[in-house]
This record gives sequence, structure tokens and C-alpha cells, in this order.
Amino acid sequence: MRTYRLTYFDIRGRAELARLVFVAAGESFEDRRVSREEWAELKKETPFGQIPVLEVDGKPLAQSYAIARYLAREFGLAGRSNWESAQIDQVMDLVENLRRELLKGIFEKEPDKKKDPEQKLQDEVIPKFIVFFEKLLDNNGGQYFVGSSLSLADLAVLDLFDTPLQMYPSVLDKSPALQAHRKLLESSPKLGDYLKGRKQTDI
Amino acid sequence: MRTYRLTYFDIRGRAELARLVFVAAGESFEDRRVSREEWAELKKETPFGQIPVLEVDGKPLAQSYAIARYLAREFGLAGRSNWESAQIDQVMDLVENLRRELLKGIFEKEPDKKKDPEQKLQDEVIPKFIVFFEKLLDNNGGQYFVGSSLSLADLAVLDLFDTPLQMYPSVLDKSPALQAHRKLLESSPKLGDYLKGRKQTDI
Repeated sequence: MRTYRLTYFDIRGRAELARLVFVAAGESFEDRRVSREEWAELKKETPFGQIPVLEVDGKPLAQSYAIARYLAREFGLAGRSNWESAQIDQVMDLVENLRRELLKGIFEKEPDKKKDPEQKLQDEVIPKFIVFFEKLLDNNGGQYFVGSSLSLADLAVLDLFDTPLQMYPSVLDKSPALQAHRKLLESSPKLGDYLKGRKQTDI
Repeated sequence: MRTYRLTYFDIRGRAELARLVFVAAGESFEDRRVSREEWAELKKETPFGQIPVLEVDGKPLAQSYAIARYLAREFGLAGRSNWESAQIDQVMDLVENLRRELLKGIFEKEPDKKKDPEQKLQDEVIPKFIVFFEKLLDNNGGQYFVGSSLSLADLAVLDLFDTPLQMYPSVLDKSPALQAHRKLLESSPKLGDYLKGRKQTDI
């Protein structure tokens, strides 16, 4: 049996998607959370000076999406055909597109921009992406993003909206479809218990 | 037999990696290049208002990396094991990291920053990434990035450095390893002919 150790800070951030894959698949792993001080020591040992890093039987794999994809393939959450896998990747890329917009609008905002970037996020950017996600769900019958069961795509969308929902609790109010999708995932025993019990962090 | 149509602007940009996968695999496809005027008409028909879009027997797939990954899996360029696929994904994510830095430094530069962002790219950012890529090549024996034959990872790195090499021709001068890697790919018959014959564009 393989041993997995996932190293990251004590936040959701760029490691939570990998954690969600482990949880949804019912697979155990070492969830190693390091402090800033520990990280200063560790940094030089990582492949690209960044975390998360996943060690599989001691062999390191860097890059959060590479890690999540590896685990999803390993545990059967990466699609049942190449076309399903492509649909999942399409969702993953859309998730990363919105994540970049969130980072820009929230953390890199320039005070001299014409419109407040955070307001633009809420009024324009997030609603635009919500429409895309709703269309994908709808095209697939409404329950899951791809195929007839849970996949990495569903977990990525769940994870994506966690931070916006903390910051702007009404962000999904106009999207019953995305709310229902979240509820579906939260009602699954393994994921539900984890989501209720996990440590609350800002990001 | 499947029919493939790839729609994008008449530049390398975000579609060239998919084109390289078709070429390396010796697979034929319709390389549909649209003008800005045609794009204004087409935009509303695309899944997310963006190109590239790949149509596979008429079914659309959006997102450049989702497209490249789909094709790489279809044509056997996505790794021979899950671990190899993970190594390829790791390279892909690193490629995207540097691509983002290039876009920031070249196209989104703010005139009031302390150091000229383009200079910083050349002096610090690109050299840092080159070290990472060299390490990956070296760890795998020096020829290909992953495994013992060409994969999507090699094509992604080739494509990544095309624009920097046009802008700063000396960018790989200090990296014999990455130069040798480019030469290896350029010397393969299919890729070599394509690279020599393709239309020259700025990006």
C-alpha cells in the first residue's frame, strides 16, 4: 500500500483540493501542516521552492493541480473516458481562471483603478463565471459536472467557492443550481463529515 | 476516424501547444484561424466566450490546456503510467507559472514599479525557471522531460520559450541543456518540418 504525505501551510489554499480528493475517495494520508518558520527550513528541499508537495512513498510531486490530478486518476475520480477527462480538465481550467480573478481582485488590488476591483468581482466577474458553471451543470443533467458521479471537477468547484462564500455570503444566492450542487456534495457522508469538521481558516 | 477542428486566431498564442501535439503525433486536423472580425461573430457560440476551441466530431471543448491534454492522451503523449502523467502535469503547471510571469512582465507592466518588470524577467524570473527546467531534465537523464520518449511536457516547454527567444534571443545562451532539448525536438522529422515552415508571428 502506498503512503501519502501532503505538506502545506495550515490553511485550505492550494492544498485543499488534494485533501478533498483523499477524503472523497476514503483514502488516508498524512496531512502535514507547517508553520512559516518550519517552511523557511523546508523550502530549499522542495522541487520548486513551493508547497504543496505530495510525497508518494517518499517521492515528491510538486504543483497543486498536478497533485490533485494524480490523486484523482489514482482513485477513479478523473473520468471514465478520455472525453470525460477532457470535460473535467475544462472545468479545472475554468476554476483556475476564476481563482486568478479572485486573487487579482482581492489581494492585488491597485487603489488607483477606476472601479473598485472587489466590487467588480462581485458585480461582474463572479456572476459571469457562475453562468458558465451553471451551463456546464445543466448540460450534464444538473447533478454532477461531468458524467454520472462525483469527479475532480465537482471537488474543484466546491473548493473554489469556499473563500468567496466566506467573504460575500450571498455570492451564490442567485444560483440555485450551484447551491444544490454544494448541498449534494455536503450530503455525502465522507465529504460532509470532513467539511463540517475541518479547521476554519480565512483562505 | 475522428475529425478535429481547432479554432483560434492566426498566432501561436494559446493554441500552438495543441497544434504541436497534432504535428508530433502525425495526426491531421483543420487549423482554422479567424480574424478579429470573424471572432466577434463566433464569440457567442463558444462555451466560455474564448478561443481556442477544439471540435471533436463537432463537439466543442474549450480551454487550451484541456484541449492539449485531451489530444496528448488520445495520441499517446501523456505518459505511460499515472506517475509519468503526474510528472508531465508538473511540467505543464511550471510552464503555466512562467507564462503568467511573462504576461505580467511584458504586457501588464506598470510604469511606476521600482524595477523595470521586463528587466526583472530577464535577470531573475526566467533564469530561476530555467534552473527548475534543467533540474527536471537532468533528473530524467537529460533528453526528455518525462520518461524515455517525447511527451506533452517537452512540447509545452518548447512552445513556452518561443516568444522569449524572439524577444531576447540570448535567453537560453546559458542553458546548454535546454538548447539541446530544443535541438532534439527540432531534429525530429515531423516537428522539425513544421517548426521550419510555420508562419512567423509575434506571439
